Amino acid sequence: MTSPRRTIPDAPLIAAATGSVPSRQPVWFMRQAGRSLPEYRKAREGIGMLDACFRPDLLADITCQPVRRHDVDAAILFSDIVVPLKAAGVDVDIVPGRGPVMGKAVTTKSDVDNLPVLDHEVSHVAEGIGIILEELQPAQALIGFVGAPFTLASYLVEGGPSKNHCATKALMHAEPEIWHALMRKITDTVIRFLRTQVDAGIDCMQLFDSWAGYLTAADYRRHVLPYSAEILATVDGVIPRIHFGVTTGELLAPMSTAGAEVMGVDWRVPLDQAARRIFDASGAKVLQGNLDPAMLFAGEQVMEEEIGRIHREAASAMANGTASGHIFNLGHGVLPDTDPDAVTRAVELIHEL
Amino acid sequence: MTSPRRTIPDAPLIAAATGSVPSRQPVWFMRQAGRSLPEYRKAREGIGMLDACFRPDLLADITCQPVRRHDVDAAILFSDIVVPLKAAGVDVDIVPGRGPVMGKAVTTKSDVDNLPVLDHEVSHVAEGIGIILEELQPAQALIGFVGAPFTLASYLVEGGPSKNHCATKALMHAEPEIWHALMRKITDTVIRFLRTQVDAGIDCMQLFDSWAGYLTAADYRRHVLPYSAEILATVDGVIPRIHFGVTTGELLAPMSTAGAEVMGVDWRVPLDQAARRIFDASGAKVLQGNLDPAMLFAGEQVMEEEIGRIHREAASAMANGTASGHIFNLGHGVLPDTDPDAVTRAVELIHEL
Repeated sequence: MTSPRRTIPDAPLIAAATGSVPSRQPVWFMRQAGRSLPEYRKAREGIGMLDACFRPDLLADITCQPVRRHDVDAAILFSDIVVPLKAAGVDVDIVPGRGPVMGKAVTTKSDVDNLPVLDHEVSHVAEGIGIILEELQPAQALIGFVGAPFTLASYLVEGGPSKNHCATKALMHAEPEIWHALMRKITDTVIRFLRTQVDAGIDCMQLFDSWAGYLTAADYRRHVLPYSAEILATVDGVIPRIHFGVTTGELLAPMSTAGAEVMGVDWRVPLDQAARRIFDASGAKVLQGNLDPAMLFAGEQVMEEEIGRIHREAASAMANGTASGHIFNLGHGVLPDTDPDAVTRAVELIHEL
Repeated sequence: MTSPRRTIPDAPLIAAATGSVPSRQPVWFMRQAGRSLPEYRKAREGIGMLDACFRPDLLADITCQPVRRHDVDAAILFSDIVVPLKAAGVDVDIVPGRGPVMGKAVTTKSDVDNLPVLDHEVSHVAEGIGIILEELQPAQALIGFVGAPFTLASYLVEGGPSKNHCATKALMHAEPEIWHALMRKITDTVIRFLRTQVDAGIDCMQLFDSWAGYLTAADYRRHVLPYSAEILATVDGVIPRIHFGVTTGELLAPMSTAGAEVMGVDWRVPLDQAARRIFDASGAKVLQGNLDPAMLFAGEQVMEEEIGRIHREAASAMANGTASGHIFNLGHGVLPDTDPDAVTRAVELIHEL
């Protein structure tokens, strides 16, 4: 079988991600496909989140909605971080208003021994990617989506969303052998799911470590980093890789050593400062970010000022050599009650830079 | 009337806060008075949170409970950040499992105009402080408790707890005049409430800016810092001042310029790195923190290792002159389901340092 992957080095996002000068400032927004869009709410009516992630036509439609509406430079595969767990046979559901909930928390050695590992292609997702690629133009990149092992481990150990990740951190520290066995299995599952996406033709990928910001840098380095690095290594040289976590200002240095070409930056850290931390640890990388999603609620003038500030901070980092490019994004995800017209306007303002 | 304030320079917490060498490593824990203690849950049975904060006997008992049980070096006044708003006549209640909820959100100029300002002593709290001071030993400091204006503004503008503070940030950016009028009124209320506590004899105070970590440093400097600084200035030279907010690693430099002698540090930032950021902005200060509250769930060996690490990081900052002292604490509050015996053991381990 020949690879379905497109050759689109001139797509602005791919150009920026690979260190070339893009034809326009590329931008996409985390959670651009989601509840802020009326067409998304309509498409999801009566369909559970996880069901939606396994329906090829539906996941393809939802993935393409923000590209059609906002003219963003990339689609991000509509998925959820627990999709590979579900595909592996883990008893997990996504409860509206709460998030992923496990049938049973994974806390003992026996629980880890019994955790299934994904060992096959996720054909519905592969099929959905095929449909997406038929719709996207050559200037529009498709970014694959995988959750990082720490975040998945937290959902498994806590049994659901957690505010403080106590049980996860306690397991990591008090039972390191169980912890590492768990991370091993999750990593294998994530790698297999990523392979599904790569084989189906994604142009780029983002590794989301949603909860990594709840770790100290020491814990991150010892208990998490090797697994995230292993996942990223499996697609080294195959597609550009983006890595992001919320509230990870203190972790930018170790996270950047995991290997991604592009580092997503939380909105709390000015891009020029983020670039310095990343450069000192790993050399110049491409920055992604970092408009505060709350600024989409503050009116056009404020948005324009903030977009200008972020652009200047990125330009400053590129001028002094601490960054090798910039993909515009938020510094977290689009909030559900965001006015979609504000998102469209933000994209226009960014493209005018 | 003569001041009821005690003269206790040798109390370990006061010694450390004023840059002297304490007779033992002082420690207290944020939220040490609260749901982790069975005696607290018993005392609160059938009594609403805000009611409890206005009953002198009860608030005094709850304040002293952790001192009796854990042998910590300070009591922290049992209160809530909305107590001064309630005392001023604002329609606010604390809803169990949710937090402070306003009868009406404050979003317009007219809402701000109608917001009452505290203009009198909060006598029940003053009376409670008197009872506490009768019980405390000279080695045990009483820390007063006030919430910072940004955090209070967020509750007022959002109408309750918020995950992202969108309306607050939008108001700050889009309607700066309304924002500053609101902060002016809140600041006056907080200052009046602090005066109640100082007049009643607190030995020290902590300004809690719970949500400041949701701001960029630029927004913090421009829209928040002057008000927090004004509050701290009212007790300059009167009592030692502690300043803390969660997830404020990026804000330590500007926050330290607000004037407090002691800077509380979130558990994400190693104390020696925190000291460097503070020192560069404001010179050497006393550090407070910063054990991850999750470590109280990880068993004695892990706690001991983490306590040792934090002690070494603080000692390193003191040795190189970037910090002038260390008060042990958590890097956030005690979680409600913490085993109280783990807290007691942590205090013992810290006192053995």
